[in-house]
Amino acid sequence: MFKKTEETKVLRDVIHGYIHVEYQVIWDLINAKEFQRLRRISQLGGVHQVYHNAEHSRFTHSLGVYEIVRRMVYEIKDIHDRLSEEEKVIVMIAGLLHDVGHLPFSHAFQNICPVEHEQFSRDIILMDSDIHCILQNISTHLAKQVADIIDYKHENEILNQIVSGQLDADRMDYLLRDAYFSGTSYGKFDIERILRTIRVRENKIVVKESGMHSVEDYIMARYHMYWQVYYHPVARSFEHILFMIFKRMKEIYPDESYFYNLDMFTPFLEEKQSVRDHFMLDEHASYYGFGVLTRKNDQILKELALCILDRRLFKYDAYSEANETQIREQLIREGKDPEYYMIVDTMSKSPYSPYDGHNIYILTQQGEVKELSTISIIVSSLLGGKIKEDKKIYYYK
Amino acid sequence: MFKKTEETKVLRDVIHGYIHVEYQVIWDLINAKEFQRLRRISQLGGVHQVYHNAEHSRFTHSLGVYEIVRRMVYEIKDIHDRLSEEEKVIVMIAGLLHDVGHLPFSHAFQNICPVEHEQFSRDIILMDSDIHCILQNISTHLAKQVADIIDYKHENEILNQIVSGQLDADRMDYLLRDAYFSGTSYGKFDIERILRTIRVRENKIVVKESGMHSVEDYIMARYHMYWQVYYHPVARSFEHILFMIFKRMKEIYPDESYFYNLDMFTPFLEEKQSVRDHFMLDEHASYYGFGVLTRKNDQILKELALCILDRRLFKYDAYSEANETQIREQLIREGKDPEYYMIVDTMSKSPYSPYDGHNIYILTQQGEVKELSTISIIVSSLLGGKIKEDKKIYYYK
Amino acid sequence: MFKKTEETKVLRDVIHGYIHVEYQVIWDLINAKEFQRLRRISQLGGVHQVYHNAEHSRFTHSLGVYEIVRRMVYEIKDIHDRLSEEEKVIVMIAGLLHDVGHLPFSHAFQNICPVEHEQFSRDIILMDSDIHCILQNISTHLAKQVADIIDYKHENEILNQIVSGQLDADRMDYLLRDAYFSGTSYGKFDIERILRTIRVRENKIVVKESGMHSVEDYIMARYHMYWQVYYHPVARSFEHILFMIFKRMKEIYPDESYFYNLDMFTPFLEEKQSVRDHFMLDEHASYYGFGVLTRKNDQILKELALCILDRRLFKYDAYSEANETQIREQLIREGKDPEYYMIVDTMSKSPYSPYDGHNIYILTQQGEVKELSTISIIVSSLLGGKIKEDKKIYYYK
Amino acid sequence: MFKKTEETKVLRDVIHGYIHVEYQVIWDLINAKEFQRLRRISQLGGVHQVYHNAEHSRFTHSLGVYEIVRRMVYEIKDIHDRLSEEEKVIVMIAGLLHDVGHLPFSHAFQNICPVEHEQFSRDIILMDSDIHCILQNISTHLAKQVADIIDYKHENEILNQIVSGQLDADRMDYLLRDAYFSGTSYGKFDIERILRTIRVRENKIVVKESGMHSVEDYIMARYHMYWQVYYHPVARSFEHILFMIFKRMKEIYPDESYFYNLDMFTPFLEEKQSVRDHFMLDEHASYYGFGVLTRKNDQILKELALCILDRRLFKYDAYSEANETQIREQLIREGKDPEYYMIVDTMSKSPYSPYDGHNIYILTQQGEVKELSTISIIVSSLLGGKIKEDKKIYYYK
Repeated sequence: MFKKTEETKVLRDVIHGYIHVEYQVIWDLINAKEFQRLRRISQLGGVHQVYHNAEHSRFTHSLGVYEIVRRMVYEIKDIHDRLSEEEKVIVMIAGLLHDVGHLPFSHAFQNICPVEHEQFSRDIILMDSDIHCILQNISTHLAKQVADIIDYKHENEILNQIVSGQLDADRMDYLLRDAYFSGTSYGKFDIERILRTIRVRENKIVVKESGMHSVEDYIMARYHMYWQVYYHPVARSFEHILFMIFKRMKEIYPDESYFYNLDMFTPFLEEKQSVRDHFMLDEHASYYGFGVLTRKNDQILKELALCILDRRLFKYDAYSEANETQIREQLIREGKDPEYYMIVDTMSKSPYSPYDGHNIYILTQQGEVKELSTISIIVSSLLGGKIKEDKKIYYYK
Repeated sequence: MFKKTEETKVLRDVIHGYIHVEYQVIWDLINAKEFQRLRRISQLGGVHQVYHNAEHSRFTHSLGVYEIVRRMVYEIKDIHDRLSEEEKVIVMIAGLLHDVGHLPFSHAFQNICPVEHEQFSRDIILMDSDIHCILQNISTHLAKQVADIIDYKHENEILNQIVSGQLDADRMDYLLRDAYFSGTSYGKFDIERILRTIRVRENKIVVKESGMHSVEDYIMARYHMYWQVYYHPVARSFEHILFMIFKRMKEIYPDESYFYNLDMFTPFLEEKQSVRDHFMLDEHASYYGFGVLTRKNDQILKELALCILDRRLFKYDAYSEANETQIREQLIREGKDPEYYMIVDTMSKSPYSPYDGHNIYILTQQGEVKELSTISIIVSSLLGGKIKEDKKIYYYK
Repeated sequence: MFKKTEETKVLRDVIHGYIHVEYQVIWDLINAKEFQRLRRISQLGGVHQVYHNAEHSRFTHSLGVYEIVRRMVYEIKDIHDRLSEEEKVIVMIAGLLHDVGHLPFSHAFQNICPVEHEQFSRDIILMDSDIHCILQNISTHLAKQVADIIDYKHENEILNQIVSGQLDADRMDYLLRDAYFSGTSYGKFDIERILRTIRVRENKIVVKESGMHSVEDYIMARYHMYWQVYYHPVARSFEHILFMIFKRMKEIYPDESYFYNLDMFTPFLEEKQSVRDHFMLDEHASYYGFGVLTRKNDQILKELALCILDRRLFKYDAYSEANETQIREQLIREGKDPEYYMIVDTMSKSPYSPYDGHNIYILTQQGEVKELSTISIIVSSLLGGKIKEDKKIYYYK
Repeated sequence: MFKKTEETKVLRDVIHGYIHVEYQVIWDLINAKEFQRLRRISQLGGVHQVYHNAEHSRFTHSLGVYEIVRRMVYEIKDIHDRLSEEEKVIVMIAGLLHDVGHLPFSHAFQNICPVEHEQFSRDIILMDSDIHCILQNISTHLAKQVADIIDYKHENEILNQIVSGQLDADRMDYLLRDAYFSGTSYGKFDIERILRTIRVRENKIVVKESGMHSVEDYIMARYHMYWQVYYHPVARSFEHILFMIFKRMKEIYPDESYFYNLDMFTPFLEEKQSVRDHFMLDEHASYYGFGVLTRKNDQILKELALCILDRRLFKYDAYSEANETQIREQLIREGKDPEYYMIVDTMSKSPYSPYDGHNIYILTQQGEVKELSTISIIVSSLLGGKIKEDKKIYYYK
């Protein structure tokens, strides 16, 4: 059913050495225009404003997820033996395509566009797209199965967990990759050891106790990456400005004359976006659109767009009521509407939260399957402690 | 004259660990909008089409060049002692700004726009720009001196060599950086050793004989990077298509009605571009422009733009006359004008060509200064050998 | 007072790039025979039995500690400004020499020889040795000051902390170095960041809050290195056998005729070792001695020595009383005295224990100095949790 | 015929990530006492005198060679398909054991002991040893076949080439490993690419043209490692002193009374060494022996042994006749016999010498097999150039 390529194709990758492609369908999907579009979507919204090397795209991350899935289904005996060839290919495709629905600056955008990127991924896979055609040409039920894994509702639980459990190909790739490109050491953990110690028990992906310290290390890596990289206030500042731009556009949207030459955004403001509209809205189009905003007559959008283009980011301080009041008053004195020029933001992140269906499980030396925090002293200590929280106020200056 | 920042500011960098900024003027230049624009210009034209991780921008490279210049003027005693504080700052600025004039896809673009990027850099530094203002505010002759170094005509020879000799900060950074982001090992060489063994003699930057093998290694690194990365036919293919797009636009330019909504390109086609036009033409604008082309009625531009956007690159073969004839005839049969759908390309690269003014010099144990190839057996062997040449034909299929 | 070398001498190092030597006294001490002896003492007792690459010596570690001390006293402004040139040199010497008193297989040996390695270091520095002469030739009170730092009782508190606080040059080097040579990723942490954020307040080495996550990372690195590397049961097994060998020798010691040709050990068994005896007992002598044991007539020493030489390590199991009884009985049945062929071992390690004088202190953004666990959520959580303990039984099979 | 281990056993390795063991016989051989002895033989004679981290043993290198052989026979399709299971296991064993015959300080020793280490390896494999027993227990002709590969005379040519061709597992491992432990970047090359592009044609291991640049890189890596590491004059100096010690011992050998307590050396001086004598002579025994020499009455051996133990290495200068005469006369004035206190040494190394049977072959895009230098411009240039030579005089001071 699945044609193999003549010989294994390889793509050099900084994290995995090589990405290996053995199936024609994978190769065709990589070359599909909707997948190539991911080259034009940054992996990390505003992070490269602070870690300047973090300019990598979702394209490279998606290849990386695919490669980890591929290794999981071939190199982990328990998984290998439980999956048919078809299931193997399907889950590799799901890993490859799980992010295909991303819009630029996802987090900022999501706040005004109520559709999640998983829903866009679903639409692209199931509806009118080159990707859909490629899948359809092989078998009519393929697209549905791939979409089900991305939705975490495939009937074979293992497939869902491989792509998006707590210890999944997605997270493992992005931690390693984001660490490489940000130049920090925090995101590194021993993926070889984790892959070597994964087993399947009770229809769950579990890790042998001898690999538990690598899992602990992975959890700490994730925790540090959140606080040092993903939640960095400079990155947040950039994203808040984007959010304000979209919020303002949404606000004035019904005024069609304003939106002349901004048709990359309008279908989304109208909430009538098609798969094709999604395809057109990449980062290039967005930035071009921001340029258009600077030449239009809404003062707020003009100023905020220049903040993005010339990197005049919002300042930030630790939050206090007094602080908020003072900033608000100052903005009003300067004629800036606090609705668009100020934002209060609370970040918090627990190192690991065991919750139903997404726990990490350890296979003890005695052969029992236990939730990680019941057996790891480190993780249970962290769960017992406080949760780090950071409340800041960001504002135009 | 040059104000220091309150404390040393650092930017985390994947190649140098940290970029260190001690002068306010450097910090201000980094934040100038023309420098921030470099985030929107790729370092390597089409290379990320083959090495998918090579998505880094000229922004990160420019910071890297600055950092190497900074180390050279502070850590190499012979240089440190010969330069005044002013000269040190000027050459650091020149390192930072040497690429500020780059357009997107420089090589493809250069073929239709007769202005070199160094000329654009000069204009930005000397004319109406935020960068110019920053320099002017410190001293009226500063901009001129920085531009002179970029033009390799500053009266203090050492300053020119630091930024663009044969063993300069520019090349050292790009080899290391492009290797890191392409995921290849070819570009690596021992920069620590080279910096440690640099001396100044006869107003030249020279390397002690004990560092010669590191220089040999650097030359081989450069040679391999050219053939394996910069000249990779997939990257060339991408660049040839871009070249054809610009060539075609130039061809039909006088037809103004066609160019509606393409004002990012028109000033250049007209050869009347201003510093502001240059500022506007970043990669986002170009890609947006390519999108516009796909919706216009010139069939050639429509097809070529889709080749770029959906990654349908030109195929390539080893060149032969028979091959060329056959491809040409085939294209004509298909109604494709060979002027735009086919190109013959010859690449050649000598590992090292000693030529007046840009040689590498070695300081022998006896204290003499000798041109590298007269003393290195490896380099002299390579000079005595043939020069590698690669002639290929690229064509639409 | 302290002569500089003609130019900075450098030794290539895998962890620090280069070890830099600028003072003649440092160079002379490195070349002193007691320091060169450290090439013949392994850094990690039995660890290379499990991580086969961990064959590095205390010589390389000692150079590394020196290099970190050197960076601390020159690159950390608060330290640099507070120390005289003499204090700088003294603390660099103390870093270099802090391990000079180590015997082979320190931990196993310590159990029978009641002298700690710090005491041996002291003796070598203060008594009859080439090292002592070198120090004495410069100034008569130098040796005393160096020894005081190693004893953590120099009157300038900062000097003690640099060499052996909770965040000292010794630990930072060994974590990084042992990780490099064991090939694990656990020991890595961001030393650059820590060095950049160290300050001095209230006569204490403190870390700015912006570097706290690097400290957290360092603590986790240390914790993982203990459990995954230093406490690995295979390494412990090797060390237990060594311990048994020394215990047995001590037992039969008064029988002089047995100890013919074993004069590397006898002064220590007699507890009358001189500095010269210490010098003679390196790892080569020990292993040669084990070979001698295999040709003598004490069956226990013969067998245990072969366990070491041919790597027939003790087996190990989780401890239980039942287990212990069974193993003991089995050994007795086989005619093996459980006193020498079996050992129960309990390891425990808290990630970080704040205790008087050796805490890690954080300098908050508000300028207050606080003990780490009062401000780090991670560290306080870990302190609140259980302490990991591992009880095993090791036995001959 | 070959029993598998229950599950794949892995040993963490700094170069290969993990060493994978799937056959019981491999595991047993690793644990054989003659193989464990390699932990007590340094990989690089005197190199750690200059690159202090290069303290690794032949044990780790031998595991690395095994691992590369293992990957070659399983991952390279052309090799995999041509070898029976038995041949695969035999060549993995040969890779593992090829260095088992090494004495300490091989090069220095070889000059007085006319037996090459390959001969010792042969003897250990074919004669009375634990290794021999392990092989014999599986099949009576196994030992012979392993020895044949080590002698490069196995009838299946491919097996010989895998272990010791020009592009063999031995060299690939030692270049990477010695680079890692010396902390230099010179020895690095792209082994993944080479393994990926190896094919078998005309009963030869060849490399596809697309991997040729990696082979060029490997040749340059080797060349630089020779000059910068293996031939470093400080390492040579150490080895020359060892050579003089052995030469002097050989000279005075018939005087048996002198050799009391030096029985680690005597069988070799007598040229009657057995496999057991070989086993006993490890580095520990040698160093212990040097210590014995310092307490005996031959002044020459006493002084030379102290040169080794306390690292008072021979000085060195560029050779000239005048220089030699002067040094000789000076030594005579000081009562030092130039026969033992001075040596003239000429090193030379061509980057690559194609000679019958050990060439590197390239498989061109047209499918032809060509010797590397006929097709690589770099290699042919280097062959056409001069050969680097270095003549030095080393002497006691």
